Amino acid sequence: MIKAGIVGPTGYGGRELVRILSGHPEVEIEALVSHSIAGEPLSSVVRAFSAVADKVCEKFDAGSLAERCDAVFVAVPATESGRLVKALHEAGTKFILDTGPDFRLKDARTFAEHYGAEHPATELLADSVYGLAEINRDAIKTAKIVAVPGCYPIGLILAVAPLLQETGLAGSPLIVNSLSGISGAGRTLREDYHFPEAGENARAYRVGTHQHVPEMEQELERIAGHDVQVMFVPHTVPMTRGIVTTAVVPMEKAADTEALDALYRDYYSDEPFVRVLARGQCPEAKNVRGSNFCDVGVTYDERTNLAIALSAIDNLTKGTAGQAVQDMNILFGLDETCGLWCPPLSP
Amino acid sequence: MIKAGIVGPTGYGGRELVRILSGHPEVEIEALVSHSIAGEPLSSVVRAFSAVADKVCEKFDAGSLAERCDAVFVAVPATESGRLVKALHEAGTKFILDTGPDFRLKDARTFAEHYGAEHPATELLADSVYGLAEINRDAIKTAKIVAVPGCYPIGLILAVAPLLQETGLAGSPLIVNSLSGISGAGRTLREDYHFPEAGENARAYRVGTHQHVPEMEQELERIAGHDVQVMFVPHTVPMTRGIVTTAVVPMEKAADTEALDALYRDYYSDEPFVRVLARGQCPEAKNVRGSNFCDVGVTYDERTNLAIALSAIDNLTKGTAGQAVQDMNILFGLDETCGLWCPPLSP
Amino acid sequence: MIKAGIVGPTGYGGRELVRILSGHPEVEIEALVSHSIAGEPLSSVVRAFSAVADKVCEKFDAGSLAERCDAVFVAVPATESGRLVKALHEAGTKFILDTGPDFRLKDARTFAEHYGAEHPATELLADSVYGLAEINRDAIKTAKIVAVPGCYPIGLILAVAPLLQETGLAGSPLIVNSLSGISGAGRTLREDYHFPEAGENARAYRVGTHQHVPEMEQELERIAGHDVQVMFVPHTVPMTRGIVTTAVVPMEKAADTEALDALYRDYYSDEPFVRVLARGQCPEAKNVRGSNFCDVGVTYDERTNLAIALSAIDNLTKGTAGQAVQDMNILFGLDETCGLWCPPLSP
Amino acid sequence: MIKAGIVGPTGYGGRELVRILSGHPEVEIEALVSHSIAGEPLSSVVRAFSAVADKVCEKFDAGSLAERCDAVFVAVPATESGRLVKALHEAGTKFILDTGPDFRLKDARTFAEHYGAEHPATELLADSVYGLAEINRDAIKTAKIVAVPGCYPIGLILAVAPLLQETGLAGSPLIVNSLSGISGAGRTLREDYHFPEAGENARAYRVGTHQHVPEMEQELERIAGHDVQVMFVPHTVPMTRGIVTTAVVPMEKAADTEALDALYRDYYSDEPFVRVLARGQCPEAKNVRGSNFCDVGVTYDERTNLAIALSAIDNLTKGTAGQAVQDMNILFGLDETCGLWCPPLSP
Repeated sequence: MIKAGIVGPTGYGGRELVRILSGHPEVEIEALVSHSIAGEPLSSVVRAFSAVADKVCEKFDAGSLAERCDAVFVAVPATESGRLVKALHEAGTKFILDTGPDFRLKDARTFAEHYGAEHPATELLADSVYGLAEINRDAIKTAKIVAVPGCYPIGLILAVAPLLQETGLAGSPLIVNSLSGISGAGRTLREDYHFPEAGENARAYRVGTHQHVPEMEQELERIAGHDVQVMFVPHTVPMTRGIVTTAVVPMEKAADTEALDALYRDYYSDEPFVRVLARGQCPEAKNVRGSNFCDVGVTYDERTNLAIALSAIDNLTKGTAGQAVQDMNILFGLDETCGLWCPPLSP
Repeated sequence: MIKAGIVGPTGYGGRELVRILSGHPEVEIEALVSHSIAGEPLSSVVRAFSAVADKVCEKFDAGSLAERCDAVFVAVPATESGRLVKALHEAGTKFILDTGPDFRLKDARTFAEHYGAEHPATELLADSVYGLAEINRDAIKTAKIVAVPGCYPIGLILAVAPLLQETGLAGSPLIVNSLSGISGAGRTLREDYHFPEAGENARAYRVGTHQHVPEMEQELERIAGHDVQVMFVPHTVPMTRGIVTTAVVPMEKAADTEALDALYRDYYSDEPFVRVLARGQCPEAKNVRGSNFCDVGVTYDERTNLAIALSAIDNLTKGTAGQAVQDMNILFGLDETCGLWCPPLSP
Repeated sequence: MIKAGIVGPTGYGGRELVRILSGHPEVEIEALVSHSIAGEPLSSVVRAFSAVADKVCEKFDAGSLAERCDAVFVAVPATESGRLVKALHEAGTKFILDTGPDFRLKDARTFAEHYGAEHPATELLADSVYGLAEINRDAIKTAKIVAVPGCYPIGLILAVAPLLQETGLAGSPLIVNSLSGISGAGRTLREDYHFPEAGENARAYRVGTHQHVPEMEQELERIAGHDVQVMFVPHTVPMTRGIVTTAVVPMEKAADTEALDALYRDYYSDEPFVRVLARGQCPEAKNVRGSNFCDVGVTYDERTNLAIALSAIDNLTKGTAGQAVQDMNILFGLDETCGLWCPPLSP
Repeated sequence: MIKAGIVGPTGYGGRELVRILSGHPEVEIEALVSHSIAGEPLSSVVRAFSAVADKVCEKFDAGSLAERCDAVFVAVPATESGRLVKALHEAGTKFILDTGPDFRLKDARTFAEHYGAEHPATELLADSVYGLAEINRDAIKTAKIVAVPGCYPIGLILAVAPLLQETGLAGSPLIVNSLSGISGAGRTLREDYHFPEAGENARAYRVGTHQHVPEMEQELERIAGHDVQVMFVPHTVPMTRGIVTTAVVPMEKAADTEALDALYRDYYSDEPFVRVLARGQCPEAKNVRGSNFCDVGVTYDERTNLAIALSAIDNLTKGTAGQAVQDMNILFGLDETCGLWCPPLSP
């Protein structure tokens, strides 16, 4: 059994890690680390987990975690996660999976610019690996520190990767709109997410300036082999889980939907968690709820010479914790679907 | 491996059976039976299950199912389920679990009165067993036909069973209010459940006349050993899953919350799926979402000499499919939690 | 034109006052008083009101308000409202309408017990009037200080008043369940009302101990002319506006639905805002959304000798601000429907 | 008083017409025309309107309506509305306002292509006027038949009109994403809009092929004076009312947000219903709920040389019925805000 530690189990990403790992046949949860409720069971805050995925939380102790755990998941806010990852690494932790943003960007200055603070552990940037299994599997296999990608980048990259890798794009930027459930904003209280304000509402926010843009561009450029610009417009909509992404991609030359569809089916033919939808179907948040699937679809519009790539993920599962566990499976040589092969909650 | 058949996998109860059984370590889904999509994969209607819990549906053939399956789950509307159960029984099916209402009421006339049609198989009423594990475990162990209880009765019975069994009640009726998510009304389209009508709405319906009342009274009387009347007021509220029940129980003599709380903890001490909440906490639908848990709580009001018992279940899991699988586990001598011991989706 | 002041226009009750009064043909909003945004327009916090119901807010100045305003609405938390009402009264304000709880209870000790603080102005209790128009119209006509009732009491009193006034009740307590939208909890952030926690959830809270219970009993006793006990179980459900109430009333002797229905129609025959539904229909929150209507219905259950009375209101309109404006209309001798006779938002 | 008839008052657009017109100080509702409930009061279907905006419905009789009504609003499905408008026109109806699509497109073949049926009254196309007040006010003043625009086109046109009229655009298509509440799909039952399917879900649909695209392009071309292509991706999100639109517009040359902001403020300086938001704010559906406002904002992204224009409307108010009443006000020489100047419901 793999002994796992989870730092930050009270947040939404951390809860989802607890939920998934507690049902993982090859994992035993060895430690739950929470500063705020150290000494108390997780269910003192997350009552849903009472009896089934509960455990007394402990304070962060890098040495103890390194000794007791085979893998430590870190699910805390930006820069705090970098500091904890550094401490865990220095204490000799075998495998660290960080769901925060600190090790996603290869350039520390870009990090500082978008996250408003100096990077806490620049010396580890070179050793960490971008943990999106479908595009970076080989690198993950030998990693010590895995940077679990951001939820929006996961939805976008999986939607457009086949197009970028195999087809000539025009020079223009990708126009990307995402619709996110409100759990993506985390557990921190804000008036925007007070039920009477967030219910029956929809809105764009941080138009063109969201902190996930450099991560998107970094990875899309790696796939495409050339510069890629993204105009990203995130929106919140009144649901708890899910991200639906629509990416409009200018094409260099005329294509057709049939060819793009075939390209996607081929590209994802060995990927268990990416489901290429039948032509004419659009990905829907409800169809991936609580699961590690990413539904994708693509269509070509002759009139405008644009390809439209779409995806849907559960932001907490494939968008965070599920992806992290998929990475852990890779690190330990398990089948990637181990502990993750469950149907969505429907309805 | 137990070979299972599911009749009616496109409905909401049926889907939940597919979801749970596809992850059950001792079960293999042998047959999905759907009249409406025979010859097509389940995902032609339930896209969420594509790849992970999909299978081509077949027509109903009692003989074939009896031969190929160790257990057949029937999840179709009232009276139709009775006819199919009868056919399956006559064909020699080993174990039948019916999520419909046909075999819950011991009296065929009461059935006819509340379901608007003659009972389709009165001769089987004596052989069928009411499948609420927590109150009828021993009978279930030797059953051939299990009548999976209605969702509202499950919520109510588990909320009040300790009170009824151990404490003297006053003669007055129990006043029971339940709040149900809209999946309880099934997949059939109705204007009441059209999103713009059902969202941002709450209402009572069938006040005092809901068809689950005789089932509630039958089982509560069995537990109490005397007549019990229930005034039941169901409500729909704008959520998909969940039933929250509040039962007000007139007490014969003064009690106190501490004693009732102890009574509940004792009564449910060996029940894996019933979680008695800490005093002062109220059951919440979100804390059982997608799980087989039933959260219960009790309080005593000295001023009015009333006990108030509360519960929360997921109507599709503990309220239907999860209970059915728990019953199947009992039938096959498995641990009751087998395939059901998963944390709720939170949030 | 009546010059009106609104103290506390940023809260949900205050906003609704602004919305209604800004469209009232006999009213001009003279002053918006907000400590937190004094000097800024209301739309700096309530963007929805930009252009149409906006005005620069000012600090609280009792003398200035008394001089400039014919009526001042106070919509601030408990005990703070009592202090402000006292100051306004001493400054000679003609009419004060308080949407807070401070002047609803006639007994200051009961107030202290349920609101956790000494009553701030006991000397004014005798001069204030309980402002539920349908049961206290004559007293309101000559009042200087109107205590606008609590939202739950309004829903309950209008549901059961005809029964209490005209029919013999049995001695047993009324069992009352209410389902409230989340705006009833106000604008203050709490984890319970964070969208991912409150969406797809339902729960009871403060079972039997809600602070509105003494107010309910005080007024029901006044109507009935004898002691009345209420077992009140409030619930929150995932909608923004609306309260649906179900009151189960033990009857002294057998009745019938037809007679009760006639009683209700007669009792409310002159009330513009109370709509007695056709028999068999249940009040629904959506049918009163954004309006001052209270829909009521009653049914009798022969089997249990219980009457079940139901109501639906919009908690911010008839439940707070609409009722306050109806009271103002009475104070100024206007038609009660003036400025309030608008259809609900449907859907 | 203007005597108004409403054909189709049971649908969502029709209900909103009833709601608005029943509070309009210069209008009296003379006739409600409904085939399905002729002879019955509107509240037999729309209970929310009982008492306040109810009236017995009648069958369609063009002659009678022409004689009794000064203006007739037609709110029925495509092609049916064309036939009724034709009949009303031939009967001599003074003013007809059609909320259906039949008279929006100037080209009957385009209509046939997108609405799947021959145009029912091509001879009237030349006489009808596109009824978006902000861009076509002068033509509306002298119209007999007003084609009330589609909800998505209203949101888009108001978002981008200043950009199109005054600034050089690059040749590339506009990329437009809209998020719509589900009332936009109307009252007709569909599995997609069954509460358990539509709640907690988001999805794109009819990518690039929505029937509103030719209407968008027709009007944007008229404003711009040259060809305009639109790649339009509509989405449904789990709310009842509201459309939020994000249009990405390639710019010919570099601009800056300050200049675009000034352009918008100038362009809309005399428009009562268009609110240009403060820089950095994004339009939100909740801020226009139940009102005739359209909130707009614009930003420029230097990095990609793209302008992003955003808007929010209530699809049933400014998106349908409110716009229709605004048009009626123009036809009758009233102030455009007459009967429409109400604050949004907040929250």
